[in-house]
Amino acid sequence: MDLNNDKLSKYNQITRRTRPDFINIHPIQAAGKLTDAARKALIEFGDGYSVCDLCLEGKLQTIKNPPIKDFLEDIAVFMGMEIARPTAGSRMAMNVVFKVLANQGDTVILDGNAHYTTYLAAEDNKINLIEVPNNKYPEFKINEDDFIDKIEYVKKNTGKLPAFVVLTHVDYNYGNVVDAKRVGEICRKYGIPFVVNGAYTVGVMPVKGKEILADILIASGHKSMAASGPIGILAASKNLGEKLFEKSSIIGDWSGRKFGNKECHLFGCPPVYGAPIATLMASFPEIVKRTSEENWNIQVENIRYFIKQIEKIEGIKVLGTTPKQHPLTKIETPSFYEASKHHKNKGYFLFKTLKKKKIAGIFPGSTKSFKINTYGLSREEVDKVILAFYDIAKENNIKIN
Amino acid sequence: MDLNNDKLSKYNQITRRTRPDFINIHPIQAAGKLTDAARKALIEFGDGYSVCDLCLEGKLQTIKNPPIKDFLEDIAVFMGMEIARPTAGSRMAMNVVFKVLANQGDTVILDGNAHYTTYLAAEDNKINLIEVPNNKYPEFKINEDDFIDKIEYVKKNTGKLPAFVVLTHVDYNYGNVVDAKRVGEICRKYGIPFVVNGAYTVGVMPVKGKEILADILIASGHKSMAASGPIGILAASKNLGEKLFEKSSIIGDWSGRKFGNKECHLFGCPPVYGAPIATLMASFPEIVKRTSEENWNIQVENIRYFIKQIEKIEGIKVLGTTPKQHPLTKIETPSFYEASKHHKNKGYFLFKTLKKKKIAGIFPGSTKSFKINTYGLSREEVDKVILAFYDIAKENNIKIN
Repeated sequence: MDLNNDKLSKYNQITRRTRPDFINIHPIQAAGKLTDAARKALIEFGDGYSVCDLCLEGKLQTIKNPPIKDFLEDIAVFMGMEIARPTAGSRMAMNVVFKVLANQGDTVILDGNAHYTTYLAAEDNKINLIEVPNNKYPEFKINEDDFIDKIEYVKKNTGKLPAFVVLTHVDYNYGNVVDAKRVGEICRKYGIPFVVNGAYTVGVMPVKGKEILADILIASGHKSMAASGPIGILAASKNLGEKLFEKSSIIGDWSGRKFGNKECHLFGCPPVYGAPIATLMASFPEIVKRTSEENWNIQVENIRYFIKQIEKIEGIKVLGTTPKQHPLTKIETPSFYEASKHHKNKGYFLFKTLKKKKIAGIFPGSTKSFKINTYGLSREEVDKVILAFYDIAKENNIKIN
Repeated sequence: MDLNNDKLSKYNQITRRTRPDFINIHPIQAAGKLTDAARKALIEFGDGYSVCDLCLEGKLQTIKNPPIKDFLEDIAVFMGMEIARPTAGSRMAMNVVFKVLANQGDTVILDGNAHYTTYLAAEDNKINLIEVPNNKYPEFKINEDDFIDKIEYVKKNTGKLPAFVVLTHVDYNYGNVVDAKRVGEICRKYGIPFVVNGAYTVGVMPVKGKEILADILIASGHKSMAASGPIGILAASKNLGEKLFEKSSIIGDWSGRKFGNKECHLFGCPPVYGAPIATLMASFPEIVKRTSEENWNIQVENIRYFIKQIEKIEGIKVLGTTPKQHPLTKIETPSFYEASKHHKNKGYFLFKTLKKKKIAGIFPGSTKSFKINTYGLSREEVDKVILAFYDIAKENNIKIN
């Protein structure tokens, strides 16, 4: 194979499908769209090591210009935790938690709605998982007290308590909000570390780790804090932070080289040292503002309004617990599936029709069911999306009640 | 602590110290500066999940728009390897190699000039390291045949061969180029996997993994391929790629959930799904072009010219092997150190004076010695940097021979 100019020319003019003027209801994109301040920071700090210009101690977390040191302290406060570090996404944070807080062969309990990366963190680190079930279709609700049964089960079957418990605060399929504090109480009673995956909560709804009794709280910058990816935040109690953010103690056998200023479970400096952390910092003031109770109530009202209107289309049914407590949700659309069979664009008709209407975010090929997220949309934009679906229903002879 | 607006206002207008019109000789930044095409891609794909708009299979590596699938195939060809995956920087790639190709308690051999993240990858995964020495000050040269001694040593002391050998193709302190092929031959003779850290070579000098007998070749996008970070490339032989990029096989004990399309050692989809991979792709045609023998020779000539001129300043001495084979190098500057004692800006005088001359990249506070990288500078820019140092010498009564 040869890498000639003809072949390569497709790479240097790549453009994004979803245009800036589109309404974006993509389940994992809606709350990650950059703020204006983040767009400026993106350009300013676009080079990969751009925040390292004034690094005096060889530690990302101590850089004062730009104010990373202060930022990490402030985001710990924002999350209601004692110490925070950035990671290359929530998924890296979760992997670190499994690596550091469990030994190979240990057992960890998670909810059955957990993100796939929680399962992979366990697999990658050779940890066994036990799932707390949900109540299945159509609610997929996690019963908080079921964590007690599973803790007892692990205790009985392995002779010891699980290494920790992971709760997905809001899951990525149904947007169900679990009563994290209740699970926290259970963990505290047993003395088990309580890890909360807040990838869909921190940055969009009001969350304080200490209020939900979290020992570890994980957040996603590109998912829910208007940051260019990848960046996650791993926030912890002081006690667990000492383990997670342990300093390197390895010594070169010949050279005697040491790296005592580097945190060994985070690859030394975590790989976020340009656009990721700069954009997250730049969006942070807006994130603090938008997570007010007041704004959150507006977001919840918007999704409830959307659901109410969209369920008027024959066959459309919302999944997960109701009334909705979070703007991410899954919708069953059997009538659209029927329509797709006869449509010239087949399974892609919905995706393509919405694109024409400048609405992005439905997974291409989805018609039977799909996920959406109305986070950050104005009521006018919500109406535009509803009307788009009404139009699609009419065009395909689907009844609107 | 309270997060009020006054406190937060410093975050949303952060600016970078190193301005676009500066000459940048920062050791880890010079070859990472974005190309014009990458700057466009940065803006286009700034949102964190921007390349996922047309993801049809839930796998980053199969996305066709933008052309990630083709790109990963092409970059494998470019690197002279059989399969490639992106990672959140070289450091993540190295960590994955230690995690997957060694078991806890195994021994790995590395060169004593290795990047600190190689040591941390071992520490994080509980792997023992044995260093191949360098010949110390002032050359710090690695003798390739010393790998034989260390392999024999490990064999004798542990009863088995090392899990693999890591060679730092060019190190981050002295810019010494090691004869990787010779080490590759040794590894092949013993049947030990040969891992090459090409963070300072792939993307700047002509490197083909197969020619140096690498089983694994690691590259850095933000260090040496004009990409916004973090992004690394983990490229491998087909055989080792099957291990490194193993598909998930975990099954939820209650739910039966599976994630067979996700690569379990890379957090599922590796976290590069916005600006990192988009900018790397956009720069790729230029990267292919700039790694020609012809351009590489110009880069090597530039650093030799720079060294020749700069060593005319009394006390300045280049470290590492000479003549220079790579534009990254370390320079001893005892005369600048002496000058700093009497300068009003003390240890920061060099950094600050260069800033005024619009030259960035010396670590703030360095005067005894510092690292520089002339990669990508025109001869005119090299001259400008030399003259700046001459000016500094004159202002501080340091003799120029």
